Amino acid sequence: MNSNYFCVIMAGGIGARFWPMSRTNTPKQFIDILGDGSTLIQKTFNRFRRICPAENIFIVTNGIYKDIVKEQLPEISDEQIVMEPARRNTAPCIAYANYKIKEKNPNAVVVVAPSDHLILKEDVFIDVIEKGMGTASNNDCLLTIGIKPSEPNTGYGYIQFNEDICLPENNSIYDVKVFTEKPTIEIAKEFVESGEFLWNAGIFMWSLKSIFSAFEKFLPEVDDLFKQGEGLYNTAGEESFIKQIYQVCKNISIDYGIMEKADNVKVYAADFGWSDLGTWGSLFHLREKDEDNNAIVGKKVLTYNSHNCIVNMPKDKVVVMQGLDDYIVVENDGVLLICKKEDEQMIRQYVADVQVEFGNKFV
Amino acid sequence: MNSNYFCVIMAGGIGARFWPMSRTNTPKQFIDILGDGSTLIQKTFNRFRRICPAENIFIVTNGIYKDIVKEQLPEISDEQIVMEPARRNTAPCIAYANYKIKEKNPNAVVVVAPSDHLILKEDVFIDVIEKGMGTASNNDCLLTIGIKPSEPNTGYGYIQFNEDICLPENNSIYDVKVFTEKPTIEIAKEFVESGEFLWNAGIFMWSLKSIFSAFEKFLPEVDDLFKQGEGLYNTAGEESFIKQIYQVCKNISIDYGIMEKADNVKVYAADFGWSDLGTWGSLFHLREKDEDNNAIVGKKVLTYNSHNCIVNMPKDKVVVMQGLDDYIVVENDGVLLICKKEDEQMIRQYVADVQVEFGNKFV
Repeated sequence: MNSNYFCVIMAGGIGARFWPMSRTNTPKQFIDILGDGSTLIQKTFNRFRRICPAENIFIVTNGIYKDIVKEQLPEISDEQIVMEPARRNTAPCIAYANYKIKEKNPNAVVVVAPSDHLILKEDVFIDVIEKGMGTASNNDCLLTIGIKPSEPNTGYGYIQFNEDICLPENNSIYDVKVFTEKPTIEIAKEFVESGEFLWNAGIFMWSLKSIFSAFEKFLPEVDDLFKQGEGLYNTAGEESFIKQIYQVCKNISIDYGIMEKADNVKVYAADFGWSDLGTWGSLFHLREKDEDNNAIVGKKVLTYNSHNCIVNMPKDKVVVMQGLDDYIVVENDGVLLICKKEDEQMIRQYVADVQVEFGNKFV
Repeated sequence: MNSNYFCVIMAGGIGARFWPMSRTNTPKQFIDILGDGSTLIQKTFNRFRRICPAENIFIVTNGIYKDIVKEQLPEISDEQIVMEPARRNTAPCIAYANYKIKEKNPNAVVVVAPSDHLILKEDVFIDVIEKGMGTASNNDCLLTIGIKPSEPNTGYGYIQFNEDICLPENNSIYDVKVFTEKPTIEIAKEFVESGEFLWNAGIFMWSLKSIFSAFEKFLPEVDDLFKQGEGLYNTAGEESFIKQIYQVCKNISIDYGIMEKADNVKVYAADFGWSDLGTWGSLFHLREKDEDNNAIVGKKVLTYNSHNCIVNMPKDKVVVMQGLDDYIVVENDGVLLICKKEDEQMIRQYVADVQVEFGNKFV
């Protein structure tokens, strides 16, 4: 295992779309959403432990989630938990982690990944990340991962790649033509048919040298703020310094701030059973189904004349469901949701209504 | 209040059709099924307290429900709880109560009623029972109550009355032509259209003299058994005597054993908003509805695009229901049921399946 390899797991999200499983105090990344005994952040951590030494894995999150991170990842030390005092999107989060890693190892090669995505083919994933980290070690490039699309999904950003220009060492790593925002369904269909577009998985690999030089060039105002803290990172002075600069730091994504502008961006075209698990519907597609095509988590659920439902029930709860087709049925911690899968975009509204009617305790 | 008036409330039923609200250890009569703060047996008891002295009201039930009866009706004494050692239908239950009452007051006039029915117009009910008790005091008759049918319900027995022969003192009390079992829908429609049929509410009034003479004539084998215990009723010897004779006592209803055969049966045609609350569907018709015609018990239930549902939720449970039309949604004590109203006859099957799969605790 290469001791220069570091990992930054971004775990600050609040994930309202998986309510009532995800809650403000227990967002999606901290939930065993597949019902297989480990939470998404535990799965993510365990994947990257196969690539980096455990002590080189940093978790960036909000202070309110520090205890749950320590509980779910007992192997990591306090100083591996990077606490953002405010939400400023991915670029400041990455800049912050970069400076902390630089103090430990200026020759670091870093993989940055979300904490709450699903990877079904772990071995393929490990192979891709290991090869990608090798490429990032040996090239001044910003490497992102693009997923071969299986459908014209309008929930993802897309990356157009140049299929004529791939690396000599790896013919799955291409030059990038353009990053695009989430498309309409018509455009998404064209993207998929063209064969030139990949889903943007939000997973990045780079050497510290390459990413620092990109920040200096494209986001100098962000870089300047964090540079002032050199010497304070990983010391008692870090917390108050960070609190101060987060107040004035701009809110910007790494995609918009750097990846869309840099000319040394490359994309690793891969297929490892990836989903960002953005909605109950996306989870339904990935979970195992019973003979009626219901995806059920729960030990005591009986279904009659019900099909294509996604069900998450506490393991001790007895449930009899009859005559439900294409529904989401989820109970967690005193809250029950029954709604049609096709109307799942309304869940944000339900959460807002529940907050107004019954208080913060239930959201 | 007439101290000769006695009441026998039959509370031994197990009511599986209201599962999961009703459970083996808490059948329908012990549930606040309307969500208004009192259980059905409490409502029944409170109605009859307006007619009889409280100490003249007897509750016939199974020994396993003694504690719940005492808890829900703290005013009554242990000796007012008549415990049947086995289920033998209504005739033995009534014979038993008759002998206990005879020891206290041989001039008693008795009203017998189920514990788990709903009466919406209490004042009309009280008026009918008071007049009926007067008639039963002054006439050697077996008086039953017939409800003017509002629909061709196939869940009830019907009583055909002779509209030409009513009592001089009360022109709502008629001679009975025939008792009928639950009819088919076609026959039920004919019954309702004819205007000659009433629903059999299972509420009876008679003097002890009249009912004893009917038992002697039509069910002498039952009467002989209970007669052997004279002198033991309301003493320490009662329990073991009753245990013994229940082992050999036949299982027979008062309707089949006596009412269908006696020639001094009369029916009081009444309309006091009665339902036997036989199914969730019947309860739905009786409960208050919201603007979407949902009948909801629960303090924290939000509905979206849902209509004609009947919902019973624990008061602290937050529920979001979307896109459900004509469903039963009920949670109680660790069990959730979601099923179509039109398929509610399947609930017995669900209960049986849950018992097999998960054990007695949940049924």
